[in-house]
Amino acid sequence: MRPSGRAPNQLRSVILEPAFSKYAEGSCLARFGDTHVLCTASVDEKVPSFLRNTGKGWVTAEYGMLPRSTHTRTDREAAKGKQSGRTQEIQRLIGRSLRAVTQLTAMGEIQIKVDCDVIQADGGTRTAAITGSYVALYMAFQKLVSLGTLSAIPLISQVAAVSCGLYKGTPVLDLDYAEDSTCQADSNFVLTADGGIVEIQGTAEDTPFRQSEFLTLLDLAQQGVAELAALQRKVLGL
Amino acid sequence: MRPSGRAPNQLRSVILEPAFSKYAEGSCLARFGDTHVLCTASVDEKVPSFLRNTGKGWVTAEYGMLPRSTHTRTDREAAKGKQSGRTQEIQRLIGRSLRAVTQLTAMGEIQIKVDCDVIQADGGTRTAAITGSYVALYMAFQKLVSLGTLSAIPLISQVAAVSCGLYKGTPVLDLDYAEDSTCQADSNFVLTADGGIVEIQGTAEDTPFRQSEFLTLLDLAQQGVAELAALQRKVLGL
Amino acid sequence: MRPSGRAPNQLRSVILEPAFSKYAEGSCLARFGDTHVLCTASVDEKVPSFLRNTGKGWVTAEYGMLPRSTHTRTDREAAKGKQSGRTQEIQRLIGRSLRAVTQLTAMGEIQIKVDCDVIQADGGTRTAAITGSYVALYMAFQKLVSLGTLSAIPLISQVAAVSCGLYKGTPVLDLDYAEDSTCQADSNFVLTADGGIVEIQGTAEDTPFRQSEFLTLLDLAQQGVAELAALQRKVLGL
Amino acid sequence: MRPSGRAPNQLRSVILEPAFSKYAEGSCLARFGDTHVLCTASVDEKVPSFLRNTGKGWVTAEYGMLPRSTHTRTDREAAKGKQSGRTQEIQRLIGRSLRAVTQLTAMGEIQIKVDCDVIQADGGTRTAAITGSYVALYMAFQKLVSLGTLSAIPLISQVAAVSCGLYKGTPVLDLDYAEDSTCQADSNFVLTADGGIVEIQGTAEDTPFRQSEFLTLLDLAQQGVAELAALQRKVLGL
Amino acid sequence: MRPSGRAPNQLRSVILEPAFSKYAEGSCLARFGDTHVLCTASVDEKVPSFLRNTGKGWVTAEYGMLPRSTHTRTDREAAKGKQSGRTQEIQRLIGRSLRAVTQLTAMGEIQIKVDCDVIQADGGTRTAAITGSYVALYMAFQKLVSLGTLSAIPLISQVAAVSCGLYKGTPVLDLDYAEDSTCQADSNFVLTADGGIVEIQGTAEDTPFRQSEFLTLLDLAQQGVAELAALQRKVLGL
Amino acid sequence: MRPSGRAPNQLRSVILEPAFSKYAEGSCLARFGDTHVLCTASVDEKVPSFLRNTGKGWVTAEYGMLPRSTHTRTDREAAKGKQSGRTQEIQRLIGRSLRAVTQLTAMGEIQIKVDCDVIQADGGTRTAAITGSYVALYMAFQKLVSLGTLSAIPLISQVAAVSCGLYKGTPVLDLDYAEDSTCQADSNFVLTADGGIVEIQGTAEDTPFRQSEFLTLLDLAQQGVAELAALQRKVLGL
Repeated sequence: MRPSGRAPNQLRSVILEPAFSKYAEGSCLARFGDTHVLCTASVDEKVPSFLRNTGKGWVTAEYGMLPRSTHTRTDREAAKGKQSGRTQEIQRLIGRSLRAVTQLTAMGEIQIKVDCDVIQADGGTRTAAITGSYVALYMAFQKLVSLGTLSAIPLISQVAAVSCGLYKGTPVLDLDYAEDSTCQADSNFVLTADGGIVEIQGTAEDTPFRQSEFLTLLDLAQQGVAELAALQRKVLGL
Repeated sequence: MRPSGRAPNQLRSVILEPAFSKYAEGSCLARFGDTHVLCTASVDEKVPSFLRNTGKGWVTAEYGMLPRSTHTRTDREAAKGKQSGRTQEIQRLIGRSLRAVTQLTAMGEIQIKVDCDVIQADGGTRTAAITGSYVALYMAFQKLVSLGTLSAIPLISQVAAVSCGLYKGTPVLDLDYAEDSTCQADSNFVLTADGGIVEIQGTAEDTPFRQSEFLTLLDLAQQGVAELAALQRKVLGL
Repeated sequence: MRPSGRAPNQLRSVILEPAFSKYAEGSCLARFGDTHVLCTASVDEKVPSFLRNTGKGWVTAEYGMLPRSTHTRTDREAAKGKQSGRTQEIQRLIGRSLRAVTQLTAMGEIQIKVDCDVIQADGGTRTAAITGSYVALYMAFQKLVSLGTLSAIPLISQVAAVSCGLYKGTPVLDLDYAEDSTCQADSNFVLTADGGIVEIQGTAEDTPFRQSEFLTLLDLAQQGVAELAALQRKVLGL
Repeated sequence: MRPSGRAPNQLRSVILEPAFSKYAEGSCLARFGDTHVLCTASVDEKVPSFLRNTGKGWVTAEYGMLPRSTHTRTDREAAKGKQSGRTQEIQRLIGRSLRAVTQLTAMGEIQIKVDCDVIQADGGTRTAAITGSYVALYMAFQKLVSLGTLSAIPLISQVAAVSCGLYKGTPVLDLDYAEDSTCQADSNFVLTADGGIVEIQGTAEDTPFRQSEFLTLLDLAQQGVAELAALQRKVLGL
Repeated sequence: MRPSGRAPNQLRSVILEPAFSKYAEGSCLARFGDTHVLCTASVDEKVPSFLRNTGKGWVTAEYGMLPRSTHTRTDREAAKGKQSGRTQEIQRLIGRSLRAVTQLTAMGEIQIKVDCDVIQADGGTRTAAITGSYVALYMAFQKLVSLGTLSAIPLISQVAAVSCGLYKGTPVLDLDYAEDSTCQADSNFVLTADGGIVEIQGTAEDTPFRQSEFLTLLDLAQQGVAELAALQRKVLGL
Repeated sequence: MRPSGRAPNQLRSVILEPAFSKYAEGSCLARFGDTHVLCTASVDEKVPSFLRNTGKGWVTAEYGMLPRSTHTRTDREAAKGKQSGRTQEIQRLIGRSLRAVTQLTAMGEIQIKVDCDVIQADGGTRTAAITGSYVALYMAFQKLVSLGTLSAIPLISQVAAVSCGLYKGTPVLDLDYAEDSTCQADSNFVLTADGGIVEIQGTAEDTPFRQSEFLTLLDLAQQGVAELAALQRKVLGL
């Protein structure tokens, strides 16, 4: 049995609150149970230098945790003077995931910077961040369309993410911290609403897992992402 | 007339939401109109090295802004690899303000780390941070008393803060961003509930101000802090 | 057809040269075609602080590229003053992969630091690094056994890695740079000799890939790792 | 009685030595008793990027202490790789104070960089720095007028600074280290020669002070600044 | 007797392997006994900003050691976030030595970046680096001539380097680590093939040495450099 | 003719002002013409970790330039966040030079930190720094003897330094900036009062120089150091 009493294929209570921020062009507070991630999408008129004069746009992401978003306080990265390897790994993942569903050539030379800040962490912050970021990104594009900067929203798929893992031998969906910290192996799945694979990060620090186990996790993730994608569409009014 | 339509001596709508965080020993979300600062107080069993074996405790503070808490996106300090001078100035101010009302010798060798993170900024983030931090700090001490670690709450005064400034020639209380960005001179006042002065930071980057003007601002601040202190007591049930 | 003329399921010419370094306790120069990675394993008597007095050991990894290992010169990370996100992501992957096959509780409080330095890069440096690191790590443990520090080699599986991807629509094994820079989607597979999954990193920056495509890549990887594992055993004399 | 034997409203022996530096466009060695601060003003033809093409100039300041300017050696900030929060707070204060009396729109796109380096410290380094910097800045503007770059000196007021505090219950002017390290509360006052307030930094880390005490300190500061301003005029030949 | 059994005026076995790197415009693996340094010369179309629009070129160098090139592992500079003083001192020496024999005005606005990476260290890495870098630099210039970018190789002398020292009272040539770590005084000599002095770095950390001893070392160095220069010419086919 | 009108073998006017600093255990302001370097020696009760429990002491040095010590302003290293390669090279040289004449085993586990800060620079700052540092170091040892911490001054030789170079073909002693910036080749000589060689740094960035020229420079340096050493003894009362 899961510590939370959830069924193996049951998501936590998920709330996506769009337009949470007063200033950002797009924003979403993504709550997966006690994991709360604020995602904002900011339009920047400058693209990275490698894209200048190419007519292409860019989407990038940054990730951070408030020092006391965690059970015990984590040192502030700004005070330490550098972002941890974990932070960089996560923000690169978020950026790649969003770019995989964006038609960069249809954006013009505009950059969207997505910030994912963890207000409270109870496992699965990177997958909540991706799920909420899609909503924020969509809204920022809507804004650009409404301003006439873009003629259409340059998103070619809908993306969401969830983690799955083996908890006491059972494959379960959407790990919370109590599960995450004790499970044998876990994977993060970034999938499109129609079942395409954007990113898979499977990690078995403790014991390697079998191919069949991995495929069960992938199936669970497909179910979970379908639910999340439906929720994204609902809050976006699609 | 003020952009917000407020009277010169009128605070913004202030909401102090205690116990906002699931994990922190003390916490408070301080909302001054559209300025929202999350303050958490974390107990650390280690004091800074200069206090080891002295029997004294310490209170310190860190401050940060989410990148899109501001009207246009601000670069993330963790990504830049250092905290700005402004950030350091503010977090040092918060720390000094809290220590001024704490009896460090009555804490034992314990450190409280207060984190003030600006979720949304509309002027006056440092004064909102101090006002909310007092609530978070008080709650953390309550927790230590309830655990038997401390026998009494080692706070000798109650502290809150507010900014005042000359807006189009008129002294006004609790500047919001529209006022702050255009006013001639402004001051941050950190005061105790009974009118003691903890910190004053008066700054006239544009034109020096007269002594009489400064004293009017100080009077306004005393009124404002009295209101804020009453609100702190209310949410703390005192 | 692949630029190199290889069959879809054909590895590059792979040479693992053990004991390449005069000083390191274990070392291996891993050559996958024109990709050359020097892997050294150094024994350190100190474990990270979180393991002190636990009786457990640790394996960690660092990764770097010589500035002109690449087609055009890459800035030196030591001169820039920080490791890139890519570097940190890779070295964390190598460390996790090695720890997944190591019985940390059987090592005593010893740390093995594995350094993977890319002398020349032609795609697949991280998978070559993992494959060579296993050899270096094994040798370092052999040395500790021969010195009597350990009674047995604390490795519970044999690990190797390879990348696969869709090149012009065809699933191919062991991507070189010409393929990697143009393929639609690629994945890095870290697998054990008996088919267990240690890490999977599937990335589709361009277009999401289908689940069936992904499974084909996983099959190719299983074949490739079987070959690599046989080569590891051969050079280790097992 | 004060440790130095001075009367409560008595400044230390103050010597302003203009043109101390062979190369700087303006310079002044400010000695307040045993506190010696070298202030240089350097003309830079480039303004910060936010002022480019605005026709406005800028004045900025940097502050540092020689490692053995203090009673015991302080670590060198250049070796530690960052400036402390205190350093940044002080240099921001100096810069704001000078800008408050400078007509930036009358400077053209020129920047003056003021460096304040503490050769020896015995309390009150920031106020000595401001007092000496005004002299250095004035001289640099004189030089620009003599070169025909400017038609008039773009200074609208004369600024100087002094600290005051409560020492054993008595309000005293111009604290030295022996007083500063034991006083209950102290304030730094940056004032114009005609009594305008440019900056006030009042700090009561130990015990909050009463409003009446604060006003007494402000009066003392007005007297002290009047003396310092007279000395500035004398060494500048005004 | 020397630990290696060499005669006092005998170099180690020296092998210069040109064109070691697949990508670099010029490269050389320099082996002085067990000291192995990979030198690559990369052509960069951009000169440093102080040379822009001067028509002059530049040659610069960077130096690094692989973490386990040494007897015990050295921390990775990229991970520490800065290059040591020793590293900077050495790379500045290499750059100056190469520029001393290059006619910068005949290069056009091109920069050659030389990277010297120590694969294995057994003393004398900086002198091996200079000796190998000359070969790499020559080859890069040959390439530019063959491409028609330059009309002639802009090198005015041939440079090589060797260290000498007093080992147990005897002056010896080309110190290896066993000698270097115990010798009283040692010097690095960077000389031209025709006996010109480019750089001398004599260091007596233990006991000052006599002028006559120093001159004997200089004579030994002249002999050693003559041999090294002949080898350079041989591998370059001159 | 030299720009200053000095004879080829003539030092600038040299003034060594001991006890310049109020706090440092030893100090000396070294003036070589317009080059002014403040040298302080601070006693630290802690040795570097590699010397702990060895009974040996250590002498180390740090070097810095005030931003406007130079003809045009140089960026502040503390603000840039790192010391330049030149700074590190110089401070390492000063430290080695002082250690070469100190009997570290006779110091006990004490460290002397020498700070050399350039107040004004007109060429030859590193040699002025070494010459002044010897005086500061001697005084710090005197202080330790007077306190009974040491029984005798643990200095085995007297060290001073001077630069020489070829200026318009003529070998000259003690280069000033006007000469240094145009000379073909220059060398820094750190010598003992009795003619021993501690450090030689000969550099010919422009054209290699002949062995005979180098020997002439060495002779000039011996004369110059003899004069400087006599001056050191005079100000130390020896």
